Amino acid sequence: MYELGVVYRNIERTDPAVADGLARYGASTVHEAMGRVGLMKPYMRPIYPGAQVSGTAVTVLLHPGDNWMMHVAAEQIRPGDIVVAAVTADCTDGYFGDLLASSFMARGARALVIDAGVRDVKTLTEMGFPVWSRAISSKGTIKATLGSVNIPVVCAGAWVTPGDVVVADDDGVVVVPRERAAAALEAAAAREANEGAKREKLASGVLGLDMYGMREPLARAGLRYID
Amino acid sequence: MYELGVVYRNIERTDPAVADGLARYGASTVHEAMGRVGLMKPYMRPIYPGAQVSGTAVTVLLHPGDNWMMHVAAEQIRPGDIVVAAVTADCTDGYFGDLLASSFMARGARALVIDAGVRDVKTLTEMGFPVWSRAISSKGTIKATLGSVNIPVVCAGAWVTPGDVVVADDDGVVVVPRERAAAALEAAAAREANEGAKREKLASGVLGLDMYGMREPLARAGLRYID
Amino acid sequence: MYELGVVYRNIERTDPAVADGLARYGASTVHEAMGRVGLMKPYMRPIYPGAQVSGTAVTVLLHPGDNWMMHVAAEQIRPGDIVVAAVTADCTDGYFGDLLASSFMARGARALVIDAGVRDVKTLTEMGFPVWSRAISSKGTIKATLGSVNIPVVCAGAWVTPGDVVVADDDGVVVVPRERAAAALEAAAAREANEGAKREKLASGVLGLDMYGMREPLARAGLRYID
Amino acid sequence: MYELGVVYRNIERTDPAVADGLARYGASTVHEAMGRVGLMKPYMRPIYPGAQVSGTAVTVLLHPGDNWMMHVAAEQIRPGDIVVAAVTADCTDGYFGDLLASSFMARGARALVIDAGVRDVKTLTEMGFPVWSRAISSKGTIKATLGSVNIPVVCAGAWVTPGDVVVADDDGVVVVPRERAAAALEAAAAREANEGAKREKLASGVLGLDMYGMREPLARAGLRYID
Amino acid sequence: MYELGVVYRNIERTDPAVADGLARYGASTVHEAMGRVGLMKPYMRPIYPGAQVSGTAVTVLLHPGDNWMMHVAAEQIRPGDIVVAAVTADCTDGYFGDLLASSFMARGARALVIDAGVRDVKTLTEMGFPVWSRAISSKGTIKATLGSVNIPVVCAGAWVTPGDVVVADDDGVVVVPRERAAAALEAAAAREANEGAKREKLASGVLGLDMYGMREPLARAGLRYID
Amino acid sequence: MYELGVVYRNIERTDPAVADGLARYGASTVHEAMGRVGLMKPYMRPIYPGAQVSGTAVTVLLHPGDNWMMHVAAEQIRPGDIVVAAVTADCTDGYFGDLLASSFMARGARALVIDAGVRDVKTLTEMGFPVWSRAISSKGTIKATLGSVNIPVVCAGAWVTPGDVVVADDDGVVVVPRERAAAALEAAAAREANEGAKREKLASGVLGLDMYGMREPLARAGLRYID
Repeated sequence: MYELGVVYRNIERTDPAVADGLARYGASTVHEAMGRVGLMKPYMRPIYPGAQVSGTAVTVLLHPGDNWMMHVAAEQIRPGDIVVAAVTADCTDGYFGDLLASSFMARGARALVIDAGVRDVKTLTEMGFPVWSRAISSKGTIKATLGSVNIPVVCAGAWVTPGDVVVADDDGVVVVPRERAAAALEAAAAREANEGAKREKLASGVLGLDMYGMREPLARAGLRYID
Repeated sequence: MYELGVVYRNIERTDPAVADGLARYGASTVHEAMGRVGLMKPYMRPIYPGAQVSGTAVTVLLHPGDNWMMHVAAEQIRPGDIVVAAVTADCTDGYFGDLLASSFMARGARALVIDAGVRDVKTLTEMGFPVWSRAISSKGTIKATLGSVNIPVVCAGAWVTPGDVVVADDDGVVVVPRERAAAALEAAAAREANEGAKREKLASGVLGLDMYGMREPLARAGLRYID
Repeated sequence: MYELGVVYRNIERTDPAVADGLARYGASTVHEAMGRVGLMKPYMRPIYPGAQVSGTAVTVLLHPGDNWMMHVAAEQIRPGDIVVAAVTADCTDGYFGDLLASSFMARGARALVIDAGVRDVKTLTEMGFPVWSRAISSKGTIKATLGSVNIPVVCAGAWVTPGDVVVADDDGVVVVPRERAAAALEAAAAREANEGAKREKLASGVLGLDMYGMREPLARAGLRYID
Repeated sequence: MYELGVVYRNIERTDPAVADGLARYGASTVHEAMGRVGLMKPYMRPIYPGAQVSGTAVTVLLHPGDNWMMHVAAEQIRPGDIVVAAVTADCTDGYFGDLLASSFMARGARALVIDAGVRDVKTLTEMGFPVWSRAISSKGTIKATLGSVNIPVVCAGAWVTPGDVVVADDDGVVVVPRERAAAALEAAAAREANEGAKREKLASGVLGLDMYGMREPLARAGLRYID
Repeated sequence: MYELGVVYRNIERTDPAVADGLARYGASTVHEAMGRVGLMKPYMRPIYPGAQVSGTAVTVLLHPGDNWMMHVAAEQIRPGDIVVAAVTADCTDGYFGDLLASSFMARGARALVIDAGVRDVKTLTEMGFPVWSRAISSKGTIKATLGSVNIPVVCAGAWVTPGDVVVADDDGVVVVPRERAAAALEAAAAREANEGAKREKLASGVLGLDMYGMREPLARAGLRYID
Repeated sequence: MYELGVVYRNIERTDPAVADGLARYGASTVHEAMGRVGLMKPYMRPIYPGAQVSGTAVTVLLHPGDNWMMHVAAEQIRPGDIVVAAVTADCTDGYFGDLLASSFMARGARALVIDAGVRDVKTLTEMGFPVWSRAISSKGTIKATLGSVNIPVVCAGAWVTPGDVVVADDDGVVVVPRERAAAALEAAAAREANEGAKREKLASGVLGLDMYGMREPLARAGLRYID
């Protein structure tokens, strides 16, 4: 967050088995499994619906209207990574398009999460390269000022350390710290196993009031039914 | 709007023939038929395109970050209802996901309209349960504070009394008071009958200027044509 | 921008070969070709994805909640035009729906770009009439106050002179002044020809750092790599 | 909310002793006394700091960009009233300036609360006529379409029935329904009496943790202290 | 709007007698006198209350996060000018602080109007140099990319040609084209003369309904009074 | 950011001489001295103008609509601290008023920085307790869910570690990490010393173009002057 003009080449990535395993549970289940922390702001939206990914974070800190460091970041990508791009001030410019996407894909990146704008979204959709962003904009960017690659950043309100796991789908983007990823995977799996039975029960007409035993605490809190 | 901790079990729902009949006209036509009142703010958007519904309102008043009353509301749903959820202060948390949707569908709900966030949108889309909301967010909610069910609420700027008709489609969400629903249905039908002929005329090249007789009032207002 | 109550009937439209030719390059490439000027604000979004158009601007200046001049504008449309609608103050009302779309299509309009709201979006999607707007809203408008047609307007932050070329796609909306359109077309074509080779190189794994010769200027700016 | 083109001349105003008495407690204390309902959105801000008022609501429903009904409302004002102006769609136009303020003051109005824009704010400040609004704007309005006076309205997210009490200060605007106003006054007075002692205790260094007995419930909830 | 990297040294400024004369009428009266065009968006707010100025526009087009051209603009300032700064994309960075203000004041500038951020607002207030801006931010800017000085720009939604008159006060910012400035001055003066009598009448209790003769048109529009 | 339900009692505060020394330079100078990192979003505004403070951060992580942990935080305050409050999702509720301010002041707190709402702003102004917040709102909060005290948090887009220095004034809020605070103080002092001379020169009419030697690089970048 505080160091400018540096590129960390060796970052500790989360174990791929864990990082890859989180994708199937999706952002909302993983966010619950985390104890409801690590969520990016809901203004981060996918450029097309249906993508659901997880991967290890390569971070990049950019300046408003300047995407120079995106090219520096490209070199640091390894297969299974998701690039997380933060900006030092709010900006909607289109920092990323089909050319950079070709490069990112060739390096093995699975997605881009950027707290700014993106462009060429039709082509990106055709290429199947998912992006979560705050805006879509044709506005190009310059290459004039150094930011950093692989330092911790604040992206859309979430703290991201290089190597953390990023989980993203239609519900949004969640960040799982490396040291908590294995536990989160386990908790997410447990949660999902648990949810299947609940879903069936609720679908059969059982009420959450009964299934969760809420009637008594609601009455204690003073809920009154009026006919 | 002012009573907390109560659930009204007996509400006067609009006649189902009327409530159901409004769906086919859609939000915009019904809004016109109402004299242009009762529309929710345009930030209310469907989680997937194409749904077009109407139904009777079961209302719920929630607190920021607390979805306890959604479970209480579930029990009050009858087939043909649409749940309308208001919050006492602006909030984007994900109050509703696939579990609650299973429960709502089992009770016969047709849709949810919520002035807050929703999650599991991919699953909700697969389930075919439409939601109109102000946000999509993985952020879960707690169950700590009483709100109310089936009291009048302000939802996204619109006043909703339990049993009113809610009409929602890709254009937005309109509320039709119970006592005006039959008249609105009639007016919507008349309006639509009327529009077919207009559409054909306009499609054939006749100008609105001529069809609506606007040239004279425009000239009177001082419109000048310059060659 | 400053004249109210007038309709200019004779505007100098950009040469159709040029105006039509810009569509294939899309908003982002054309915006780059223009030197990064002429872009509308990114809040302007298409009502459905995938449309990509260009055409000559017929402009209309409206008042909040009043679409009277849209009917006046319809008469000024010629095949190949795109209507650009500005409002004298921020407004999300639905100024345009399927009836006006029938009329605009009958006149040969290719699209509407409006710094306000639109409605009947499901029908407009079925009709294949693309609209870029700041909002979707069922709220209808009145016909009480004169604006103007074919005067220069500021629409979503961009200056538009009647006859200019408008290029719009999923990335947004760009305005190309008539006198610069031929040069922009040439520059866009050159840019695209150029990009094909770059894309292939990047897709093959060559880094932008090397392809664009960025390593030396980055080092000169002080970039440090840390292992 | 639903009736257009009507003016109710006889409304039941809250007892002046009650309506006037609420001012001294201010918006926040009254809002607490109400059980935390009836608050307008926090985007409603005073045009100058320091005003603190209460009064009985005369309501007016306006259309975007049209202030015709403000003049109709002026006639319905009685000494001690506060005019509450709602608009059928979001609008920032300046519906109200020093001329209307002169008229409102002559009729005995204490303030204006408007979910739209206001102008002449320097003069209004000099006149000492407080306004709470969503915007300040020089943009004038037309007089073309009927709204209503003294019907229930939704203003900035709050439901207001004519004759209700409006309490406004630097913290915002709260609406107290007529039938609950006496109880709210009593509760506010009790609350304030109560707060004096608390304030002193806290100012002397006693912690809320101890004064409110929070240590035990916090421990029970699992709070851990780490040295 | 479309030319980058140029500085026009000779611009046609509005006659100083006219430009200076508009200040006393203020933004709202001048905006009315203009026929309600030329107003900047209401998000443009003064950094301190009470300033009321007019002057001739020196324009500058900036890029996001880059204030290089502000220094170029400084040299083009003549006594009586107001600098109007537009940015090619939305940005809240602090482009301007006390150093540039010292320079602008030394050149005779009366104010800055900037569709971006400003900083050192406490010092600017002490210096008595008024600024209207969209944001206040400590975020500094770089000096890397050419914009232009004294080309026409879109600033906060208004079209500004160098030499136009800018009128700004607590109500907002209005732009008066050079060729219309003399007429606007005359109209503003007439309007104000007219308003004094009206204000007195309204303050004496005469209603706008009677003074403007609105009762008859309201009745004709169908207004109903209900007792 | 990731640990809930904990209170760290022993945090390493920045050396008071350094922490206190930063106040006089203000947010903008310190932000520059930091290399332009650590700034909170510009939506964070002071509740009254003129306050300028620095102090060591005591952090608190809250949930939407729940201020329980504010009381827990109060106990951890030492003289010279500034409380920095983050929320797990966007919320405008009034988490803090005059009672808590009395407590915070008694503990020696200098200010509150909260990414949410505050109330009783008139009383807080009279008490001279400055608050920087995203909103002002009468809406009270509950005490139901554990957050944490003195863990690292993201507040208004800035990363804050307990014991860091917070510098706040009318320009906004800047966070200086403990380990960089001494260097930042030195750099800020150097910067200010430097600025005095520049300010004088600029005030005497010397242009930045000359003082900073910009003419040559501008010419090299291609700037053209047109007479």
